Amino acid sequence: MVELVDITDPDDPRLADYRDLRDVQLRQTLEAEHGLFLAEGEKVVRRAVEAGFSARSFLMAPRWLDGLADVLDRSDAPCFVLAESLAEQVTGFHVHRGALASLHRPPPLPVESVLAGARTVLVLEDLVDHTNVGAVFRSGAALGVDAVLLAPRCADPLYRRSIKVGMGAVFTLPWTRVADWADALPALSRAGYTTVALTLADDAVPLEDAVAGLDKVALVLGSEGHGLSPRWEQSADRRAVIPMRDGIDSLNVAAASAVACYITARR
Amino acid sequence: MVELVDITDPDDPRLADYRDLRDVQLRQTLEAEHGLFLAEGEKVVRRAVEAGFSARSFLMAPRWLDGLADVLDRSDAPCFVLAESLAEQVTGFHVHRGALASLHRPPPLPVESVLAGARTVLVLEDLVDHTNVGAVFRSGAALGVDAVLLAPRCADPLYRRSIKVGMGAVFTLPWTRVADWADALPALSRAGYTTVALTLADDAVPLEDAVAGLDKVALVLGSEGHGLSPRWEQSADRRAVIPMRDGIDSLNVAAASAVACYITARR
Ligand SMILES: C[S@@+](CC[C@H](N)C(=O)[O-])C[C@H]1O[C@@H](n2cnc3c(N)ncnc32)[C@H](O)[C@@H]1O
Ligand SMILES: C[S@@+](CC[C@H](N)C(=O)[O-])C[C@H]1O[C@@H](n2cnc3c(N)ncnc32)[C@H](O)[C@@H]1O
Repeated sequence: MVELVDITDPDDPRLADYRDLRDVQLRQTLEAEHGLFLAEGEKVVRRAVEAGFSARSFLMAPRWLDGLADVLDRSDAPCFVLAESLAEQVTGFHVHRGALASLHRPPPLPVESVLAGARTVLVLEDLVDHTNVGAVFRSGAALGVDAVLLAPRCADPLYRRSIKVGMGAVFTLPWTRVADWADALPALSRAGYTTVALTLADDAVPLEDAVAGLDKVALVLGSEGHGLSPRWEQSADRRAVIPMRDGIDSLNVAAASAVACYITARR
Repeated sequence: MVELVDITDPDDPRLADYRDLRDVQLRQTLEAEHGLFLAEGEKVVRRAVEAGFSARSFLMAPRWLDGLADVLDRSDAPCFVLAESLAEQVTGFHVHRGALASLHRPPPLPVESVLAGARTVLVLEDLVDHTNVGAVFRSGAALGVDAVLLAPRCADPLYRRSIKVGMGAVFTLPWTRVADWADALPALSRAGYTTVALTLADDAVPLEDAVAGLDKVALVLGSEGHGLSPRWEQSADRRAVIPMRDGIDSLNVAAASAVACYITARR
């Protein structure tokens, strides 16, 4: 049974988890140090708790309490209740969808357990944009991906914005980070995957041909700015392109990933 | 030959086009009233001018002048040159990619001229998110779309954020708004298009089957929140779905549009 705590002072130290949500850099440090992540919006908060993540606390205006009553009832964490204007002072922005939750960040899963039973895997190198990371998870979950691996420097899928854009797909799709960047794709090949680098390189073949008839596939996507590193591009088993009209630079990485998942699901 | 104007006062009235760029509502009113739109970033500013849009003015810090010298040389509009801190005061945010341009918003094109020669058309109903509108244009341009039609209330593709996310695709892909919302899809059918509503409705067939063998196709996408209106869903010739894994709500509209364009390009 949740404990409801009325808050009247925006400087209340119990609200530390919720401060300055617009400051990406500060948040990243704070969340890493305290082993937490934030979920935003009634739907996403519900999904986090239902997926088994354990709450440190909740924060919301009174009008959101009813909608989340069942979720709160099953939690022992305190729920801080405060006026919307006060919430805005604490977080630094207007919390559109009402509820926030601060949850314990679970220890990273081992790669082997993430890959267990996975036939189609997405591998993200150094994506920097949380919106893109969230969008990739959302499309991947919808279009048949079984697991996601991230390079050591890929943006955090448990960052508030990633979770929100991903509609909570990061809670249900198994994922983890690889420890050894240089060996990431060879290790997948040894585990029985055909690694397919998505790239605009000259020797890339159409993706539909690259994945035809394959069993276990790992689709590898590069960063927004520079694409894949030469190391990842060269250490993949195959290089593949989504054919584009002449004169176009590239697809956004989230769009490329959606199309690639669709094609690969039908291999 | 551009005229360089050094600016030292952030309240200089000549900078009116560039004020308060973070205030979406205010900007929409201001841009409509003054018949202008803004391009942001060296690449996008260049593309706007090269696509034939006429500049009212440019605004940038000194270090961006060289990269855009050829573009500026061919324009008669003034270029306001000011320190980055000053630019931030005027616009209300840190202009990462340096240059801004204010351009004349051209009169809307007639639907017939947008459709002339178009075999694959995207039709967007009431999208509200400028990021999605930009992403749809970018993927559409890359994946074989010839023209875009917008419902009267769809978000503006010439809004700064749409343009930026779309990498300027809105400058090259012909587009306009339909005047008559209720008749939009029947009018397309009369013009020889098979209109295909992308929807999660129960009677939707897999998109690949819906478009197989068709000549002129119009793919119709709905808003982020509620999807297509009943009127549009029912007045389309066909209803089609991108098959998803069980238990998933929907794809983001930009992801759906990328996958739909890929499928339709290969009909
Ligand atoms: C915005 S792109 C990066 C563009 C970068 N300038 C390059 O040349 O690779 C981000 C990622 O999306 C994927 N991507 C984008 N368009 C693609 C296409 N048409 N075919 C295959 N992959 C694509 C690639 O994995 C790429 O690394
Ligand atoms: C986020 S969805 C809207 C979801 C809305 N709740 C509904 O039920 O339609 C936005 C738009 O993307 C398109 N869309 C998303 N997923 C789709 C899918 N799997 N198949 C077809 N269209 C889809 C539709 O055009 C939809 O109107």
